[in-house]
Amino acid sequence: MKNYLVEFIGTFFLVFTIGATAVFGGPGAPIAIGFMLMVMVYAGGHISGGHYNPAVSLAAVVRGALPAKEWIPYAIAQILGGVAAAFLIKGIGGPIPQTGELSILNIIVAECLFTFALCYVVLLTATSKKTEGNSYYGLAIGATVTSGAFAVGSICLGAFNPAVAVSLIAMGSLCCAKYAILTLIVNLIAGALAGVTYKFLNED
Amino acid sequence: MKNYLVEFIGTFFLVFTIGATAVFGGPGAPIAIGFMLMVMVYAGGHISGGHYNPAVSLAAVVRGALPAKEWIPYAIAQILGGVAAAFLIKGIGGPIPQTGELSILNIIVAECLFTFALCYVVLLTATSKKTEGNSYYGLAIGATVTSGAFAVGSICLGAFNPAVAVSLIAMGSLCCAKYAILTLIVNLIAGALAGVTYKFLNED
Amino acid sequence: MKNYLVEFIGTFFLVFTIGATAVFGGPGAPIAIGFMLMVMVYAGGHISGGHYNPAVSLAAVVRGALPAKEWIPYAIAQILGGVAAAFLIKGIGGPIPQTGELSILNIIVAECLFTFALCYVVLLTATSKKTEGNSYYGLAIGATVTSGAFAVGSICLGAFNPAVAVSLIAMGSLCCAKYAILTLIVNLIAGALAGVTYKFLNED
Amino acid sequence: MKNYLVEFIGTFFLVFTIGATAVFGGPGAPIAIGFMLMVMVYAGGHISGGHYNPAVSLAAVVRGALPAKEWIPYAIAQILGGVAAAFLIKGIGGPIPQTGELSILNIIVAECLFTFALCYVVLLTATSKKTEGNSYYGLAIGATVTSGAFAVGSICLGAFNPAVAVSLIAMGSLCCAKYAILTLIVNLIAGALAGVTYKFLNED
Repeated sequence: MKNYLVEFIGTFFLVFTIGATAVFGGPGAPIAIGFMLMVMVYAGGHISGGHYNPAVSLAAVVRGALPAKEWIPYAIAQILGGVAAAFLIKGIGGPIPQTGELSILNIIVAECLFTFALCYVVLLTATSKKTEGNSYYGLAIGATVTSGAFAVGSICLGAFNPAVAVSLIAMGSLCCAKYAILTLIVNLIAGALAGVTYKFLNED
Repeated sequence: MKNYLVEFIGTFFLVFTIGATAVFGGPGAPIAIGFMLMVMVYAGGHISGGHYNPAVSLAAVVRGALPAKEWIPYAIAQILGGVAAAFLIKGIGGPIPQTGELSILNIIVAECLFTFALCYVVLLTATSKKTEGNSYYGLAIGATVTSGAFAVGSICLGAFNPAVAVSLIAMGSLCCAKYAILTLIVNLIAGALAGVTYKFLNED
Repeated sequence: MKNYLVEFIGTFFLVFTIGATAVFGGPGAPIAIGFMLMVMVYAGGHISGGHYNPAVSLAAVVRGALPAKEWIPYAIAQILGGVAAAFLIKGIGGPIPQTGELSILNIIVAECLFTFALCYVVLLTATSKKTEGNSYYGLAIGATVTSGAFAVGSICLGAFNPAVAVSLIAMGSLCCAKYAILTLIVNLIAGALAGVTYKFLNED
Repeated sequence: MKNYLVEFIGTFFLVFTIGATAVFGGPGAPIAIGFMLMVMVYAGGHISGGHYNPAVSLAAVVRGALPAKEWIPYAIAQILGGVAAAFLIKGIGGPIPQTGELSILNIIVAECLFTFALCYVVLLTATSKKTEGNSYYGLAIGATVTSGAFAVGSICLGAFNPAVAVSLIAMGSLCCAKYAILTLIVNLIAGALAGVTYKFLNED
């Protein structure tokens, strides 16, 4: 139960920060979002693993760091946290601005690459015996999202996270909705791929 | 006595940085403020705990990391430090710009959420046995404020700290004054809530 | 083989981020690029050393942290990763914007200084016995590139890395091409110089 | 000799970054400068202490972390490094832009406060037994300068460092010159004050 509460809280704050910067915010959004992920990873990592992202949880299952039967409750806690934040943002600030037309190819490439990078970084810095006890895992994980949001935030949803993709629909961005389903599928595939890559790199 | 001096110094620099970026500053304010909190936490954390915030001290009391009888002297040292910085800023730069009209509901939601996040992060990264000896606690604590200031700085005072709320009144922002009382009450409630959450997550 | 795969992946993401911020991006490019280098160093450092840069690999050879016979396969893996990212960026976003006219002297000074700084920081924070086990090496390495990109990004290619210089040609920036050859030679000389400096500083 | 070379190199890069962002640069200057200080502290801290600043060296003397007879050679190495960078910047980019008229009172307050904060953070995070072995000292030290440059960079020289103040004169900013002497005196007084404060906080 505590694991799920921590995943709920962390995803809630991640999505609330994404929504707040979209509705009220300014140029610092990629820093705000990456920093919020970082602090939630540092706060909750030792309890639940600090995933806040079904693609990361899937990568952890493939790598063997999370029991497969935990994936569904983790994903539910994460999506509930994200959707709760989405409705709160919509309640206090209205729907987030519509995304313009995006290229399907760009969404696939950008969401796949940066979700892969995120899950690859999580597995190598937060679940590997060889880097155990380090103090940098949260910084590395949050900074991957900041980097991705700056680099490809204008050509895709910049979710890198199925719970975020679902929450964007809940925030009332209809234009997002048509891209969000694609995004969440790509995110999950990229997470699984990162798990496989990790296993190859650490097979002995 | 040393504890109180460290709390005075840290809150002084935190509020001075907030005031200076408001009166003289530019787009980097959330980074400047979060970084100053971070460096003061790293500098003074091993002496006083590095709270610089009565809501954090209250969370620490609820969690059992600070004796209850220390809360009042801590809060006094913090408020004195903040108010001293406020008068200095007013002396060299004049009163800070007036905040526009804000929504009461937005103040309550935003100040509650990010003060809760701040206290939750402090307790889990700086007072938990399971994360003892880490090097990231200051970064996590400062980054929470940077993230909050970017995300909701335009819809509330962005204080997340009763000593900051009081100092904003002292800086001569009359429009702030009417929101500052509300802010400081919300901050304290959020700190207590974070303390209760920590206890639930670590009950064994 | 794993070393080369890790170097390929890391350089791929570094160059993809450079290209994406140039083609689609905005003001956060130096942060996005430095953060991506940082996260790849943290993710892959314990496997391949996390160089992602033939000048860094050369510095490591001079210092004695990488066998000389490994330099060519490392450089090939890095260049292949960079060029693959370059073609992907060109495919989805078109060629990167042309660089304006640059001063040859400025390119030499700026690329030499910041590549030297980068290799000097890598050797002292990631290969020295005296700083072994630290958690800051990736932050220090990535931040050197962020600092350099902010400081001299407008007077040189801001590569500080021969694999990046080659990739800029592959991204179709013809104007870059005439500067890229000079850049990569200067980068390698600066890397060797940093190796010699390290040996002098640690001769006993 | 190695100590002095490391201090020369670090101050050279610090001042080069300050000059480059002033002559060629943009909005990221406070980040570029703070990050360069951070990386040089991480790279050279275990050799020379990583001061790159005569006010920090003075604070270290008062605190007992640097023998008094080392202060003059340290300051000379730092000033030589800074002035060498200043002449290089002037050679490739011309003199830095003139500072507008500044208030003497503001220079005294701002340079005193942030130099005190810088030296206070250095002593508590990098020279105290109680925080020995941490990985955050460089981040804390660099971030203090970033915070100060954002907060008061528009009302003073933003040097917080006598070697930087001298270098600003060498960069040909005549308007700076009349403020630089004042700045360097204030910086040294603030450094000594931080040393005394540290001794009080750690007297047992």
